[in-house]
Amino acid sequence: MSVLVVGSIALDTVKTPVEEHADLLGGSASYAALAASFFGPVRLVGIVGTDFPATEFEFWKSRKIDAQGVQRVDGKTFRWSGEYSWDLNTRETRSVALNVFENFQPALPESYRRTDFALLANIAPSLQSHVLDQMEKPRFVVADTMDLWIETTRADLDALLPRADLLILNDSEAREMTKETSLIKAGRKIREMGPRYVAIKKGEHGALLFGEDEFFSCGAYPLEDIHDPTGAGDTFAGGLGGYLAANVKGEVTFAELRRAVIYGSVLASFCVEAFSLERLRSLTKDEILQRYEVFRSMSQFEMSA
Amino acid sequence: MSVLVVGSIALDTVKTPVEEHADLLGGSASYAALAASFFGPVRLVGIVGTDFPATEFEFWKSRKIDAQGVQRVDGKTFRWSGEYSWDLNTRETRSVALNVFENFQPALPESYRRTDFALLANIAPSLQSHVLDQMEKPRFVVADTMDLWIETTRADLDALLPRADLLILNDSEAREMTKETSLIKAGRKIREMGPRYVAIKKGEHGALLFGEDEFFSCGAYPLEDIHDPTGAGDTFAGGLGGYLAANVKGEVTFAELRRAVIYGSVLASFCVEAFSLERLRSLTKDEILQRYEVFRSMSQFEMSA
Repeated sequence: MSVLVVGSIALDTVKTPVEEHADLLGGSASYAALAASFFGPVRLVGIVGTDFPATEFEFWKSRKIDAQGVQRVDGKTFRWSGEYSWDLNTRETRSVALNVFENFQPALPESYRRTDFALLANIAPSLQSHVLDQMEKPRFVVADTMDLWIETTRADLDALLPRADLLILNDSEAREMTKETSLIKAGRKIREMGPRYVAIKKGEHGALLFGEDEFFSCGAYPLEDIHDPTGAGDTFAGGLGGYLAANVKGEVTFAELRRAVIYGSVLASFCVEAFSLERLRSLTKDEILQRYEVFRSMSQFEMSA
Repeated sequence: MSVLVVGSIALDTVKTPVEEHADLLGGSASYAALAASFFGPVRLVGIVGTDFPATEFEFWKSRKIDAQGVQRVDGKTFRWSGEYSWDLNTRETRSVALNVFENFQPALPESYRRTDFALLANIAPSLQSHVLDQMEKPRFVVADTMDLWIETTRADLDALLPRADLLILNDSEAREMTKETSLIKAGRKIREMGPRYVAIKKGEHGALLFGEDEFFSCGAYPLEDIHDPTGAGDTFAGGLGGYLAANVKGEVTFAELRRAVIYGSVLASFCVEAFSLERLRSLTKDEILQRYEVFRSMSQFEMSA
């Protein structure tokens, strides 16, 4: 089954203490769509300018990522530039140019409207809602968000929450949103705001998943070298949503959500091994399954013999 | 089977942003011994002054903690005072008075020398070695350490490492000791310095366990309210060592070490729920087993139906 992915498509300039690269493909939808595509077909919604490389459309085609929903309009593609400090956990935005993204109104092609799974990658919550308005009762809606929307468009975000089955956000955002220092309390409180499930990302420390009476604590796959953390959260969301769409035929159970969170973590662990989407471009399904297995065995409490 | 526990016994004054308490029982051996005693008998080695409450000796007796190895000498008990900031992860030492601890030379009663399991809780590595010198071939030696010894008595620590089967230290200490930012690289490097196994504690983010070709990543039991983090690391070591001594008859396998790390984490999660040893004093074995089960089920990758 397909998953609809909407979010930003950007050209990034990323600087770490070790390297700097310009004009890299980036944006929440770019990462999320590619991550999801390892599990099944993707329907991509976004906007790019005339400076956007045509090769990317060919790449999407080769990966069963339907780009009918990507508008190509006069003007420049959204651009973001950021710099990471030594610990790679904190970053500073150096510049943002919205460009064609400024007047983006996602318009769903007719063929997209009946998609069962929607992944609303990180963009303004009003745009996320606008996409849902055009869909015919998706079975499961995953929404990602960030501090910017919590701080500047809280009413829009609050309106979206009851329409999301699963909300994804990171630990500091969960604390900011609820004014709770305990992530356990924060996760519960966010559930009361509408989403049936909440996933709190803790960066290199894994993720927590909250259901009504269920809870899952997932570590992170431990890495020796991290080159570029950009897009790790978007890739997590994409892997998670892609796994669900491809594998869950009936109701989305908590057991399936656990597995989805683990696949999201595995995809994110590959993402940060290289700049931009480079590692994901060369990644194979076999490598994903292998790392899932290693991750499972290093996290199991009881080993079978 | 018994476990020998050596370390500091102290009277602590602890201040958090919310509360302050004086003259609390503390010290690495106090926490480690009580944690270990939930699994089996303990042989305690330490030193106290004449101001040390006699009731504590009675309490130890009631818990099968043999205190023959605790010297009671003229002078005052070791005192420590510390203050935690809001996040409870960073603390500042306000004062330290070594008192009777200054000239401590651990002397093992004859009946202690053949103990199979030794837990060298956090004290100067020269004292840890001095205890091993008096033992007859313990089967498994767990040693805990801290930044102070890495910085001030590195040669003593290096001499101890090949005599330890498992070294325990926290994440920043592992990085400091190896000059590696990656904990995976740090864990491997420390193993090359002598100990067969290394456990790196990550505070509220769990622990990593390294063996020759084996690796275990353990989350932390998520807590809603933390009252006093003092002694959490010592309690982790005590739970781990106590579990091993009581449960491992033959060789200590990696599967048993995994379980020991989990029990250590469970004990530490109780420890921080109240000041000093208060929560551990009222704790029952049933509560430990229940939390182990909840922890296991919230951390499992695959759920059995």
